[in-house]
Amino acid sequence: LPSLSESVLRGDRNAISRAISSVENEDANYRTLVSELYSHTGSAFIVGITGPPGTGKSSLVGLLVKKYREKGKRVAVLAVDPTSPISGGAILGDRVRMLEHSLDPDVYIRSMASRGSEGGLSRVSRNAVRILDAAGFDVIFVETVGIGQTEVDIVRIADVVVVVLMPELGDEIQAAKAGLMEIGDIFAVNKSDLPGADKVVYNLGTILSTNDAGWRQVALKVSAKRSSGTDDLVEALEKYRGSLGESKVYRARKRLVDELLEKVSEAIARDLSKRLSQDQEFDSLVEKLVRLQIDPDTAASEILSKYYLHFPSN
Amino acid sequence: LPSLSESVLRGDRNAISRAISSVENEDANYRTLVSELYSHTGSAFIVGITGPPGTGKSSLVGLLVKKYREKGKRVAVLAVDPTSPISGGAILGDRVRMLEHSLDPDVYIRSMASRGSEGGLSRVSRNAVRILDAAGFDVIFVETVGIGQTEVDIVRIADVVVVVLMPELGDEIQAAKAGLMEIGDIFAVNKSDLPGADKVVYNLGTILSTNDAGWRQVALKVSAKRSSGTDDLVEALEKYRGSLGESKVYRARKRLVDELLEKVSEAIARDLSKRLSQDQEFDSLVEKLVRLQIDPDTAASEILSKYYLHFPSN
Repeated sequence: LPSLSESVLRGDRNAISRAISSVENEDANYRTLVSELYSHTGSAFIVGITGPPGTGKSSLVGLLVKKYREKGKRVAVLAVDPTSPISGGAILGDRVRMLEHSLDPDVYIRSMASRGSEGGLSRVSRNAVRILDAAGFDVIFVETVGIGQTEVDIVRIADVVVVVLMPELGDEIQAAKAGLMEIGDIFAVNKSDLPGADKVVYNLGTILSTNDAGWRQVALKVSAKRSSGTDDLVEALEKYRGSLGESKVYRARKRLVDELLEKVSEAIARDLSKRLSQDQEFDSLVEKLVRLQIDPDTAASEILSKYYLHFPSN
Repeated sequence: LPSLSESVLRGDRNAISRAISSVENEDANYRTLVSELYSHTGSAFIVGITGPPGTGKSSLVGLLVKKYREKGKRVAVLAVDPTSPISGGAILGDRVRMLEHSLDPDVYIRSMASRGSEGGLSRVSRNAVRILDAAGFDVIFVETVGIGQTEVDIVRIADVVVVVLMPELGDEIQAAKAGLMEIGDIFAVNKSDLPGADKVVYNLGTILSTNDAGWRQVALKVSAKRSSGTDDLVEALEKYRGSLGESKVYRARKRLVDELLEKVSEAIARDLSKRLSQDQEFDSLVEKLVRLQIDPDTAASEILSKYYLHFPSN
């Protein structure tokens, strides 16, 4: 029998699903699985799609899937939902609109729930993307609601980030939009049949900037409802992809350094938390904190000097 | 001249503002400041207010401030906005509705921007609350938009969490609501003049649960617009406060353990990141990762065994 990773590499849908469940649940085998697949990654074009709630991201992704299928590309969609760890699995919601692709063997769609764990979600998404990449998908869309730092962080695993906006966003959404300006490479103003779309694109135009790889942010109008503007969007995506060149390695390196630091910090935090729960000195430190006899920074220093090899730094 | 912390303890507004700016910017003096004030904290009732965008949290907080002022309490509001680190300071938006309190010397209102740093925001909010607590405010409202794990985490620093909902929320907002069910102690269905409010309260009623301190979640209707229901909300808050008793210490301990672990992990991550940036072995490890010759988990293990005293755990 072939191993799970061998089946994933052959593009076996059932194996892909099982592999993603494995990284989603972070079960006993997931690290081995990702290790085995890692050397087979790096070919896919990873497109992050984010934006405030209700801007029609899923419908737009549905259209992009169609466009890339017309080009003969194998396409995967990873939809990450901010749902509850209690209520469990991701809601499908808008994703029913992608049903038309559900019988196409070259399209793979998967929803994932956020389960409330902060770092966990980007880690899980990153590993799920690796599975899809190793499985040979040419384009992988990672879709998430773009409010909140965690959700925004998820799209940082992508090669390119499309921020989906629309006319007539509320006050608080406008505020969140500001945070989205930094992470977007392409801004798609969806629902451009609504009044005010031109104004939004115009306003965006005044604040677009050029990133450190020389890419100038782009703003364009789309309408998922009228299926208009998606050719322009695909063209912008491909232009971006073409512009990556050498900087793709630069960006990959940057992402890997971040991931490595994150992994190491998490492992230390996990290990430390286990050790401290069995450490009576720690108990009495916490007791002193509760009684306001010591402050949190002093307490933290005491733990650091006991457990961390290189602390205090000087 | 009195020190900044002495002036904060005397309730000097100017000093409070400077102290909060100090923790917000995490400048050279902020740790000392928080250390000096820490032993004077623990008296305030800290009320977290969160909920999806557009549910009218700020207006409701405005009314709650009024109610607590009528009881003769000194009240502070910390409003945390998910704005951009580039665009800078927090937008005031709805907060202009709180203008009526701006001349009251016993009300202090402060907006803070999220600056994009994940852990940073809860750390900064926690320290800002400590300043307000030490300055003698009886009730401190911490208000934040409740979508996204980071924003939700902020209200975990509170003694009680009020989740503000409303009738007619969109699909994606509904999904976020699920995550809010776990953190809320009291659910306030605002805009109860809109159709469907009773249905929302009824639906909430079917999923309310009892927490580990024995508190049964409460759902009630309010209308900031019609100033109705706020007496019930204040009553629920006070009932909650009364129920805390011994468990206040239990919860404080839990929060402090979390904070301690967070502080230690952050300090290690910071120190490690500095050391690795000067470590040539790390450079070649990253190079191998980029060339897919080693996988991230193996690379992380190598760093851990070099830098962390107690790793690998066994």
